[in-house]
Amino acid sequence: MKPDPQAGAGYPVSGRNQVKRRHDRGFYDHATVHALLDAAMLCHVSYVIDGQPFCTPTFFWREGSRLYWHGSSASRMLRNLAQGEPACLTVTHLDSLVLARSGFNHSADYRSVMAFGKAKLVEDPQEKERALVMMVDRLYPQRTAGLRSASAQEIKATSVIAMDIEQASAKIRARGVVDDDEDYDLPIYAERIPVAMVLGEPEPCPRLKSGVQRPATLAGYAPNRPLQDALKEAYVKSYLKP
Amino acid sequence: MKPDPQAGAGYPVSGRNQVKRRHDRGFYDHATVHALLDAAMLCHVSYVIDGQPFCTPTFFWREGSRLYWHGSSASRMLRNLAQGEPACLTVTHLDSLVLARSGFNHSADYRSVMAFGKAKLVEDPQEKERALVMMVDRLYPQRTAGLRSASAQEIKATSVIAMDIEQASAKIRARGVVDDDEDYDLPIYAERIPVAMVLGEPEPCPRLKSGVQRPATLAGYAPNRPLQDALKEAYVKSYLKP
Repeated sequence: MKPDPQAGAGYPVSGRNQVKRRHDRGFYDHATVHALLDAAMLCHVSYVIDGQPFCTPTFFWREGSRLYWHGSSASRMLRNLAQGEPACLTVTHLDSLVLARSGFNHSADYRSVMAFGKAKLVEDPQEKERALVMMVDRLYPQRTAGLRSASAQEIKATSVIAMDIEQASAKIRARGVVDDDEDYDLPIYAERIPVAMVLGEPEPCPRLKSGVQRPATLAGYAPNRPLQDALKEAYVKSYLKP
Repeated sequence: MKPDPQAGAGYPVSGRNQVKRRHDRGFYDHATVHALLDAAMLCHVSYVIDGQPFCTPTFFWREGSRLYWHGSSASRMLRNLAQGEPACLTVTHLDSLVLARSGFNHSADYRSVMAFGKAKLVEDPQEKERALVMMVDRLYPQRTAGLRSASAQEIKATSVIAMDIEQASAKIRARGVVDDDEDYDLPIYAERIPVAMVLGEPEPCPRLKSGVQRPATLAGYAPNRPLQDALKEAYVKSYLKP
């Protein structure tokens, strides 16, 4: 077996990204952080304008230690970030609700990542062109090749933002019900309720041309499948081809 | 019929909360904003420390135009916000993935809210005590009454943050596939894939005392039900009692 050059590699830890509350739940290694990012399509990006924080939901994807997201060239966030502004991109997977025997021990199982860096507008035409393809193909492998090509106006109207991850941390709770030792003797009901973002039945566009079939490349987006499983699989097909 | 004092009421609009990109998707009325907040338990809160934005996932709930969230007294976020710092609390519901006939028209259906205000530590003992009850009962109506009571140490270790909403906006896309007129003639597959956060089968704590049954008040948390439906129902039971 060849050694994995990434094995054990991680993001540097400082006050900015150290998990302080429940530090036993904190992880900084690339493998953990990247796996949680690649299982998501939705993130929340924080940035600051004149001292006011904004928290914007958006789509994103990862290439190595670089994160990309996009938006209209006109958006408030992108105008601000184009200069290379500090940002924090956060991804959260909610896995369960935890009902314990005391209010204090009520909790949830979750997996989250906070990534810090400086967000910049992608201005290099080649990097932007490639990003506009991967924005779609990262979710739906090989899809762009079969689409109507992007017009010059569309490319102009879309901005792509890139942020090299300077620091990141993952925080994971996966313990279900945990009560104080003496509370287990109480006649109080406690449970864990799993939750998951699940795919529904695909709804073909009512205006499809006759004979147009769903491509086999979309098979991963199957009804009742957890979205994160489809995303992880698509990520591997997009970036980790043999 | 009595007039509804809230009818037509809304949050004031300025540059801070105006939906600029796709302004046709923006809403500012209390009814729309509050309904999206009450259908969620997870939010992302943005705040600034020394010019660095942080984006933290956490639980929250609403009372009127006041939002509450909580954390350990030791957490970085709470230490900062206790002084009344500007914050932005965002909630996002992802409803579908939209695969169109061009890359540019790939999209998603979603409903999100951004709420702005100044976050402050709740220091009034009565408000804090009530908040610690509602933190649980807002999700699981009447649950606190049957739990082991909170200890003085637990109350001390839990901080509650409150933020009166100064401004807010909702942004909603619910259109499925929308392509450019001329693209409908292309032989390209397009679809909408619904997604939803769904509840799984409850897992009772393996250490339940014999004879302890699941309370009827948890019936709303039923397998395969969308989490947002259980949350909306619980909210009504908690705050809109007849």
